Amino acid sequence: MSITIDMMEIGQKATFTKTVTESDVYMFAGVSGDLNPAHTNEEYCKNTIFKTRIAHGMLGASFISTVFGMTLPGPGTIFLENNCKFKKPVFFNDTITAEVEVSEIIEEKNIVKFVTRCFNQNGDIVIEGTATLMPPKKG
Amino acid sequence: MSITIDMMEIGQKATFTKTVTESDVYMFAGVSGDLNPAHTNEEYCKNTIFKTRIAHGMLGASFISTVFGMTLPGPGTIFLENNCKFKKPVFFNDTITAEVEVSEIIEEKNIVKFVTRCFNQNGDIVIEGTATLMPPKKG
Amino acid sequence: MSITIDMMEIGQKATFTKTVTESDVYMFAGVSGDLNPAHTNEEYCKNTIFKTRIAHGMLGASFISTVFGMTLPGPGTIFLENNCKFKKPVFFNDTITAEVEVSEIIEEKNIVKFVTRCFNQNGDIVIEGTATLMPPKKG
Amino acid sequence: MSITIDMMEIGQKATFTKTVTESDVYMFAGVSGDLNPAHTNEEYCKNTIFKTRIAHGMLGASFISTVFGMTLPGPGTIFLENNCKFKKPVFFNDTITAEVEVSEIIEEKNIVKFVTRCFNQNGDIVIEGTATLMPPKKG
Repeated sequence: MSITIDMMEIGQKATFTKTVTESDVYMFAGVSGDLNPAHTNEEYCKNTIFKTRIAHGMLGASFISTVFGMTLPGPGTIFLENNCKFKKPVFFNDTITAEVEVSEIIEEKNIVKFVTRCFNQNGDIVIEGTATLMPPKKG
Repeated sequence: MSITIDMMEIGQKATFTKTVTESDVYMFAGVSGDLNPAHTNEEYCKNTIFKTRIAHGMLGASFISTVFGMTLPGPGTIFLENNCKFKKPVFFNDTITAEVEVSEIIEEKNIVKFVTRCFNQNGDIVIEGTATLMPPKKG
Repeated sequence: MSITIDMMEIGQKATFTKTVTESDVYMFAGVSGDLNPAHTNEEYCKNTIFKTRIAHGMLGASFISTVFGMTLPGPGTIFLENNCKFKKPVFFNDTITAEVEVSEIIEEKNIVKFVTRCFNQNGDIVIEGTATLMPPKKG
Repeated sequence: MSITIDMMEIGQKATFTKTVTESDVYMFAGVSGDLNPAHTNEEYCKNTIFKTRIAHGMLGASFISTVFGMTLPGPGTIFLENNCKFKKPVFFNDTITAEVEVSEIIEEKNIVKFVTRCFNQNGDIVIEGTATLMPPKKG
């Protein structure tokens, strides 16, 4: 079911979407150890520029990895590099779509590069970046 | 308790360490939606190059964000960019240390750049990268 | 504390009640791997017949098993069969009561059959079914 | 991406596989409220026929729902009925595959019936049953 490099082409896309909830942020905080008050202290956040708790940037970024591991190319992928810029905050209950798009195919090395972005329900880009991986080999 | 840009110098370091458990990986899978068999199917993994389930690369990468948000510079930090290369797998029960080191200080823009790395209990580097952020302002 | 077959009679009932929260649904999604957008994508759900995210049917069904394992007959029960019809959706923050009622006692085989139902705070039946189990033997 | 009834045929199959861990069982216990000692009390279990803690039957059964909601037919499915027989225990660290197979197609009512089973890494059937659902409609 995974996609090998010969099946890929420039511009090919895949997505993963999830509504990011308070429980997601709190479990992510517990697992990562990042209990930064920006994510877990509502009183503290009243005095921040965002006025309320926001999700971890890396939680949104993890959805990019989800697309790679689950869909394009899918199981067997070896993730080599992930670069991302955090452009806007992700608020609790935002519905985030991670989208990956093939930007370069280096077939002799079995390496594929992607442009990545995450956007919210309003179409605002919250994360943008690039990624490099090795798709699974034919079977 | 946070560190403002005037308190920072090139070469300054901070770390966060955690033993990555099966439950960490499974909660990360649930939150991210990345139930890739590389992380959640031991039978499948017997036929992979690592022979067993491994942690999500982004789980290790999240520890870098933990250092920024919790310690250096601490609460109030605005995370702008994270770039990381996944060099080696993180196995269940590996003890991972994320270390960040100040590499550039752009005081007029309140921007600080870091070199980052994650290593395991054997000193093997599993992730290396760079990051850019804005430390909290004074007062 | 468990109830053996000689202590049971037709019509005997027991219940378990819980308000089903967003975090319940998200943890259930993570554990089961069922991140169907009907449960985790609020934007997608605006275009469904229910207009919002709903709980997994199997989450409500799991409460039936809770009654068996915790109360009637309690620890030591061997669960043999569970059949359920999903009649209505369970919404986030609905308070669901699972009720089981003894419908048949086959003492020579130590088998008891139940009629089961789950209803919400309005009394609407959301699940109805039957179940078969072996109560614990006298100790 | 979902599969509509006109795309389905008798014998069509899909699967979902996951290694069931202690953390899965404990999170399932917390969400369902089923803290039966068979799942959460190792000392108690030393005197049971299985000699150790086992997973909830309904946790394995939830994987069947995962296949329906995620793959066949996928998002938009309305789950109507699930019947399952628990044939053998699921132990911690068993790798469970849920497999669903189309057994009847009632096109005029948009209803599809399935035979379902869950088996472990040794091929032992742990759950078998039937299910009924409405696939998403075209378009």
